[in-house]
Amino acid sequence: MDKIKRNERIAVLTRILVNEPNRVMPFSQFCERFGAAKSSISEDVGIVDAALREQQLGSLETVAGAAGGVRFRPTGNATGNYAFIQSVADALCDPGRVLPGGYLYVSDVLGDPSIVRRMGDIIACEWYEAKPDFVLTMETKGIPVAMMAANALGVPLVIARRQSKVYEGSAVNISYVTGRGVIETMSLSRRAVKANQRCLVVDDLIRGGGTAKGLIALMDEFAVQVVGMSFVLAQDAPARKPIAGEKSLMHFTGDGETQPLLVHPAIWLQA
Amino acid sequence: MDKIKRNERIAVLTRILVNEPNRVMPFSQFCERFGAAKSSISEDVGIVDAALREQQLGSLETVAGAAGGVRFRPTGNATGNYAFIQSVADALCDPGRVLPGGYLYVSDVLGDPSIVRRMGDIIACEWYEAKPDFVLTMETKGIPVAMMAANALGVPLVIARRQSKVYEGSAVNISYVTGRGVIETMSLSRRAVKANQRCLVVDDLIRGGGTAKGLIALMDEFAVQVVGMSFVLAQDAPARKPIAGEKSLMHFTGDGETQPLLVHPAIWLQA
Repeated sequence: MDKIKRNERIAVLTRILVNEPNRVMPFSQFCERFGAAKSSISEDVGIVDAALREQQLGSLETVAGAAGGVRFRPTGNATGNYAFIQSVADALCDPGRVLPGGYLYVSDVLGDPSIVRRMGDIIACEWYEAKPDFVLTMETKGIPVAMMAANALGVPLVIARRQSKVYEGSAVNISYVTGRGVIETMSLSRRAVKANQRCLVVDDLIRGGGTAKGLIALMDEFAVQVVGMSFVLAQDAPARKPIAGEKSLMHFTGDGETQPLLVHPAIWLQA
Repeated sequence: MDKIKRNERIAVLTRILVNEPNRVMPFSQFCERFGAAKSSISEDVGIVDAALREQQLGSLETVAGAAGGVRFRPTGNATGNYAFIQSVADALCDPGRVLPGGYLYVSDVLGDPSIVRRMGDIIACEWYEAKPDFVLTMETKGIPVAMMAANALGVPLVIARRQSKVYEGSAVNISYVTGRGVIETMSLSRRAVKANQRCLVVDDLIRGGGTAKGLIALMDEFAVQVVGMSFVLAQDAPARKPIAGEKSLMHFTGDGETQPLLVHPAIWLQA
């Protein structure tokens, strides 16, 4: 194809890299696409990287070596992320969201692409260095945010089920005790993950921590290491033992019925 | 802030627009961000649009009027989309995916962000003109692709459940008969949707069409119109009555046990 101008290359290169976060794309791919020399593409990458960093909209990183190339990571700015999570926390405190039994209606927030996409980016940026091979979630409500985190990390999403399904083949089932003292089951297809992989748990809510411990036990059955956990909402009271490697987006106390509901962004987001 | 150069504006503008498909962003937002005149931003938009169209990576569309601005749509090229769906169809025909009972293991494909993201884009592009207000899916396996379609359409995702949950508040429950003749229930929170909205159904699989009819009946209870349906996989045999407004990505016959499994891209993708 004809050579295209720098302006156009920058638009196309940005579109391709932003679309597949954390995927390392070889320079040769862009050289061929644009009919341009590697030195020109390197310059393009430098311009895009500087512009995105300047505007706190992420960065491009050059990876050396045989499998090298360039990748986009959506690292935002800490102040903006904190303000965003604060705005979600404020919205969740609306008394109209409190349901009978001390539950909070959050399904609309967890299905809003502009919200879960940004949450997924924030979670992914915290766990890039942990190099998870996949994201694990427990059906159902956490799936959208877990999918967006998996997308930002460039790794598959694996969904644990409440019971085994014929269309998932042979499965490992485990029993666990929820924070409310109920015995539940979770199930995962034998094909879903491989031994020695690294797992990041992403889910909507942690209360007593029973489900989280269940997911760790489930991964143990597959000889998979849980390298981190992020929940959208973590209950702080009644006090629960912290789980190692947990970084949730928001913490809350109360239920809006017997006690006032207070939701606030996690302290680590202030960094 | 200081003025930034055209190259840098193009990188930032592309990153922002690609990140939020179908969201109309006012030109004033970019004028302020860049300290640039509207005429400069218009030129930038023209350059990005031409470059993306030339490379068949989507387009920028200018929307006139008070709520006007510019939006990105990920319209790809028909040939590339067909080849992509063909490659997924081929992968699904692997005999190793056939499970006892004539089921197909697809959970890995449905959790792969690079696959469901592109499927979501293809589905969204077919339904932009139908102007859905939200995407509806039935838990669980279709949620990732439905989320990606909702993201590409810039509308919320709504998830119907198999049973009502205390943390979703009061709900509408309906019974429906599956293609296998089993009576099942589906449930949706009263808060999830509003009367007179327009709904796009996105799910992983349609066999007999029982669940699809159930979702239509459920929307009827909310006085919501189903404006279209897209499934990842649609079973063609045994013959089922076509559902109005259905555009699935792949069709299949057989089960790999009693009859050979054949999966092929939908004919409308050839257009």
